[in-house]
Amino acid sequence: MNDSTICAISTPAGQGGIAVIRVSGPEAITVCNEVFRPTGKRKTISKQKPYTLNHGQIVKGNIVLDEVLAAVYHSPHSYTGENLVEISCHGSTYIQQEILKLLIEKGCQLAKPGEFTQRAFLNGKMDLSQAEAVADVIASASAASHRLAINQMRGGFSKELQHLRSQLLQFVSLLELELDFGEEDVEFADRSQLIQLAEDIQAIIARLAHSFSVGNVLKNGVPVVIVGETNAGKSTLLNLLLNEDKAIVSEIHGTTRDAIEDVINIQGIAFRFIDTAGIRNTTDEVEKIGINRTFKKIDQASIIIWMIDTTHFNAEIEYIADKIVPKTRNKKLIIVFNKIDKISQEEQQILEEEFLPDVSAERIYLSAKYKKNTEKLENALLKAADLPELNNDDVIITNLRHYEALTKALESVERVIKGLKTKLSGDFIAQDIRECMHYLGEITGEITTDEVLGNIFKKFCIGK
Amino acid sequence: MNDSTICAISTPAGQGGIAVIRVSGPEAITVCNEVFRPTGKRKTISKQKPYTLNHGQIVKGNIVLDEVLAAVYHSPHSYTGENLVEISCHGSTYIQQEILKLLIEKGCQLAKPGEFTQRAFLNGKMDLSQAEAVADVIASASAASHRLAINQMRGGFSKELQHLRSQLLQFVSLLELELDFGEEDVEFADRSQLIQLAEDIQAIIARLAHSFSVGNVLKNGVPVVIVGETNAGKSTLLNLLLNEDKAIVSEIHGTTRDAIEDVINIQGIAFRFIDTAGIRNTTDEVEKIGINRTFKKIDQASIIIWMIDTTHFNAEIEYIADKIVPKTRNKKLIIVFNKIDKISQEEQQILEEEFLPDVSAERIYLSAKYKKNTEKLENALLKAADLPELNNDDVIITNLRHYEALTKALESVERVIKGLKTKLSGDFIAQDIRECMHYLGEITGEITTDEVLGNIFKKFCIGK
Repeated sequence: MNDSTICAISTPAGQGGIAVIRVSGPEAITVCNEVFRPTGKRKTISKQKPYTLNHGQIVKGNIVLDEVLAAVYHSPHSYTGENLVEISCHGSTYIQQEILKLLIEKGCQLAKPGEFTQRAFLNGKMDLSQAEAVADVIASASAASHRLAINQMRGGFSKELQHLRSQLLQFVSLLELELDFGEEDVEFADRSQLIQLAEDIQAIIARLAHSFSVGNVLKNGVPVVIVGETNAGKSTLLNLLLNEDKAIVSEIHGTTRDAIEDVINIQGIAFRFIDTAGIRNTTDEVEKIGINRTFKKIDQASIIIWMIDTTHFNAEIEYIADKIVPKTRNKKLIIVFNKIDKISQEEQQILEEEFLPDVSAERIYLSAKYKKNTEKLENALLKAADLPELNNDDVIITNLRHYEALTKALESVERVIKGLKTKLSGDFIAQDIRECMHYLGEITGEITTDEVLGNIFKKFCIGK
Repeated sequence: MNDSTICAISTPAGQGGIAVIRVSGPEAITVCNEVFRPTGKRKTISKQKPYTLNHGQIVKGNIVLDEVLAAVYHSPHSYTGENLVEISCHGSTYIQQEILKLLIEKGCQLAKPGEFTQRAFLNGKMDLSQAEAVADVIASASAASHRLAINQMRGGFSKELQHLRSQLLQFVSLLELELDFGEEDVEFADRSQLIQLAEDIQAIIARLAHSFSVGNVLKNGVPVVIVGETNAGKSTLLNLLLNEDKAIVSEIHGTTRDAIEDVINIQGIAFRFIDTAGIRNTTDEVEKIGINRTFKKIDQASIIIWMIDTTHFNAEIEYIADKIVPKTRNKKLIIVFNKIDKISQEEQQILEEEFLPDVSAERIYLSAKYKKNTEKLENALLKAADLPELNNDDVIITNLRHYEALTKALESVERVIKGLKTKLSGDFIAQDIRECMHYLGEITGEITTDEVLGNIFKKFCIGK
C-alpha cells in the first residue's frame, strides 16, 4: 500500500454548483480532520462511521473556506482501497483551488492522472483491464461504446480471463507432474483429451481476439468517408445527419488518428466521418496531391458515401467512378443522389435504371435541403456497418493492448496444440502454456511493468 | 413544500472523473430507488439511513448505466429541506445525460437555474440574502469577495437584520399599544428614549448601506484604468502584474458592464482593469471619438494608472496631463515611468524632481521588460485601493438589491426620527416603522414577490 496521501479535484474543470475533491491515502482522514470543523456538536470525521456524509466547514486557520459535505470511507472499503474522503464543496474555482492548496499544505500530494484508479488496481480492488475500462467509461460517447466499457469495468472480460488461466494452470500442473516423474515415462493425462482442452482454450482466445474488430469499431466509431466533387456537400450531409442531436456530436482528438473528426451517433452506434478534400479531375499538381490523399483515406474507411448532385452530371462522375469503384471490394458503398427535389420522377427513374447498374451499392435518393429521406440514409449506414447483435454478457475487447496480448497468447496455445499433436516433450509444451498464461496475465495486470502502468494511467484525467 | 421532484447535473459541465446528479422533492428517494440496484445484499436506498452513501448501479431496464454512489438525505435535513439524493457517477457526458434522461422518464422534472437553492429558501433552510450569497460564493474569484460571500451565506448579514427587525418590532408594538389606549393619551415609552433607539437603528442601517461602496469594490474588483499614449504598454503592464498568477485571472462577463475586462488578484484583492484605447492628440475625427470614450471611462475608475515611456517624451505628455489631471480629484493617480533601465540615474532624478511636481500622484519607476519594481506598483495599487481592514464578523453588503432596500429603510427610519422629534402622531410613526421593517424584510425574503425571486434565481447555474 502507498505511503503518500493524494488529493485532486475529481469533478470536471470549471465553475458549477458542486465540486468534489478527493483525498486518498493512509492520512486521508487525519488530514481532512485537521481542516474540517463539524457543524454543531457532531462528531469529528475521524470518529464517524464509514459511508457517512458529514456536514461542516473547511477552515484555514480562522478563515472559513466553505461549507461542505465530507464523505468518509475506511480502508479497504473504498474506491482506492485506502482511507478516502470526498469533500463536496461549492463549485467555485477559487474555493476548489484554495481547498486543494490547503490539503497540500497539510502534507497531501497532488494526484497524478489516474492515480486514484491506479491505487485501486495496486490495492487489488480491480484488475488492470477493469482499471482501463474506467477511462473508457468516462470517454464513452455512444450507447455501444458505453455498454462495452461498463461491461469490461464490471469484470466481464476479467472473468473470462480468470477462467482461461485456471484451465491453463490445471493443464500445466498435469504436465509438470509428469515431468517430476520424468524417469518413469508416465502420462497422467490422456493426450487426446489434452488436445481437446487446448483447442477449446484456443477457440475462446481466438474469439476474444477476433472480437477486437467489432470492439474497436464500436469504441471508436465506424469509419466513414464521404467523397464527391469539390463542394459536393459533405458538410450539408453531416449537418443533415446531425439533425437535432447536435449536442451528441463530439470531436475526437486523435492519438492514433491525425485529424479531428466528426462523430455522429445513429441509434447508439458512433460513425466516425473521416475528413477528405473534394475530388475533381485537375492538372494542378498541388490539388492532385490533396486528391490523392483523399483516395488514400478511403482505405481507412469501411463505408464510402459517394455524393452526387443529380442536377449537375458532368465528366467528373466517370473520373470518380473509375477511382472509387475498384476500392470498394471490402467496403460498403452508398451512393447518395442529392437534390432529387429538383428533378422529375422520370429523371429519377432513369437514374435508378441506368446509373452504373453493374456497381454493387446501396442507392439513396434524397434532398439534403428539404431533409427528405434522411432516415433512409441512416438505415443504410446502420446496415452497411453490419454490426452483430450483442448480448448483455458478450465479451468484446476494445483495447489494442489486450488485442496484442491475446494475439500472442493465441500463438502460444497454437504451439501447445502442435506440440501435443507431434508428441513434443512435456517441458516444451509446459513452457508454451506458461507463456500463454503470461500474456493473459499482462491483460489483467498480474504481470506488469511500471512502463505499462505509466502508459495506461497517463491517459486518465486527474482526479480519477 | 413543492409537489414536483426535480433533477439536474450539479457539477461543472463536461467530462471529468466524477459527476454529481442531484434529485430533490417528495419523490426523490422513491424515484432513485426505482433505478438504483444496490451492490450485493445491501438494503435499497429507501431503507437506508439518512446521511449514508450507498454503492450500487443505475439501471435502465436490463442495461447498467453506471456504477455509482448514492447519497441519501431525508426531509427536512437536506440542502433543500426536501428528500434529496445525490448520485455520484463517472464523469462521462454520455452517462450524465443518460441518467438525467432516465430520471426524467421516471417523472422528475429538469431543475431550473438555482431551483435547489430556491427550494432551500422556500422551505426555510436559509433566508433570501443567504440564498443570494450561494451564487456569490460560487462566482467569487478573490479572497476578499469569497470571504464576504461566505460570511453572508453563513448568515452574518441575516443576523444583523433579524436584530434590527426585532428592535423595530418592539418599537412599533409600544407605539401601537399607545394607539390602542389612544383616547387616554398615555405614553408608554419615553420619547427621548425612543429617539435614541431610532437613532441607534438609523446608525446601523446607515453603516450597512454605506458598506456597499466597499462591498461592491471587493466583490467586483477595484476599477482601474490605464491611460497613456497609443501603445504605451497597457498589455505589457497587465502581463507584468499577472506574473505567475495567470491562472487566477478571470474574465468577468459584465451584466452591468459593457466589455470583458481583465481582473487581476493582488494579495487577495481583485483589481478590474477597464479596457481603454490609447491616447494621442489627433485630428482624425474617428480616432477622436475613441479617445473621448477613453476619457469617459476614466470616470468609472477609482484608480488611474498613467503610463509614460521615459525614453520617449513628446508633446502628447502635456496633452494627456491636461486631460487627466482635472479628472483625478476623487480618484487616485499612479504615474508609471516605464523603461527606467534605459535612462541614467541622473535622468531619473530630474524626472523625480521636475515632472509635474504640483500633481498629487504616486510615482513608480519601473522596467516592465526586466520586471523591476513590479512589487512597488502592486503596493501602490493596494494603497490606492484604500480598503479598510476587515474583521471576520464585519458585515459588508455587496448586493445592489440589498443596498437599495437599505437606502429605503434608511429613509423610513429618518422619517421616524423626524416624526418623534416633531411629536408627530404615533400612527404615522408606526407606519414608517412598519415601512422600514418591510424593506428589511425584502432583503431576507420575508416579504417577496415571484418577480423578485425570478430575477434572483435566474442568475444561478442549473444544479445549484
